[in-house]
Amino acid sequence: MTYANEDNVNRLFLDDLSVGQRFTSETYAVGKSEMVAFASQFDPQPFHLDDRAAKGTIFGGLAASGWYTAAVTMRLQVCSGLPLAGGIVGAGGEISWPQPTRQGDVLRVESKVLDIRPSRSHPERGMVTLRSETRNQRNEVVQLLIVKVVVLRRANAEEVTAN
Amino acid sequence: MTYANEDNVNRLFLDDLSVGQRFTSETYAVGKSEMVAFASQFDPQPFHLDDRAAKGTIFGGLAASGWYTAAVTMRLQVCSGLPLAGGIVGAGGEISWPQPTRQGDVLRVESKVLDIRPSRSHPERGMVTLRSETRNQRNEVVQLLIVKVVVLRRANAEEVTAN
Repeated sequence: MTYANEDNVNRLFLDDLSVGQRFTSETYAVGKSEMVAFASQFDPQPFHLDDRAAKGTIFGGLAASGWYTAAVTMRLQVCSGLPLAGGIVGAGGEISWPQPTRQGDVLRVESKVLDIRPSRSHPERGMVTLRSETRNQRNEVVQLLIVKVVVLRRANAEEVTAN
Repeated sequence: MTYANEDNVNRLFLDDLSVGQRFTSETYAVGKSEMVAFASQFDPQPFHLDDRAAKGTIFGGLAASGWYTAAVTMRLQVCSGLPLAGGIVGAGGEISWPQPTRQGDVLRVESKVLDIRPSRSHPERGMVTLRSETRNQRNEVVQLLIVKVVVLRRANAEEVTAN
């Protein structure tokens, strides 16, 4: 079996990770048109679509769909935040949105390794638990994700390559 | 304060919900081009982008991003699955993807009310916990979401309207 990223140079295997290790992504500026286009396609509710309609709602103004925040967070992790050798394969986790993403926000993701467990049934990989905070330019957390990801082990990857 | 959906006729308030109540959405057919476009924008990893590259990976073939499954699930809930009076405002929850969504899958969402708690600090609303299973045409669960949503109370909504 081979894994997703053909070029795994400078990418991290399970064996390279340690509990407490931290990662920070680059930043992503949220444009209103992209945020609203996402909502039109996947979360077409007035508070995600229209300034005026959003004013009187619980959000007090136009707010991104939480799933847009999740999607942007994933992009940041894939492109800069989390350089894992096998790519980022999430099994699941806990997600919350302490406050909404707004147009013009500049987001980044700060992650910390909480737990590392080699797999018994699949010796070529393991499960890593990460805490990922998506923060805006005021350092406010817009998404908290505690997620389990499948991570490739170095030794077995080299064996696989050698065969 | 008014809420998201101007037309709340036939929509449900907190007072209309009961523990154990079930909802089923309409269906959504997953097209390859939409699935891959989402991945290109938000989760650009080979196993989400290219058939050939995906073959040798943990997914064994082209697979949707889990966040695409989450986004489609939200669309199904907003448009047919969960007719809540104030719209669907999620505070957070637990998400997992027991198996990936594939091109051509026909998804639907089945939800069940697990818990209902009126808010003490905000008497016009409450928090409802839902279990939402996103299933494909083979009845396999592709996403399990236990989510807390903010739901409007009927009495207070009427008072607000009357003022």
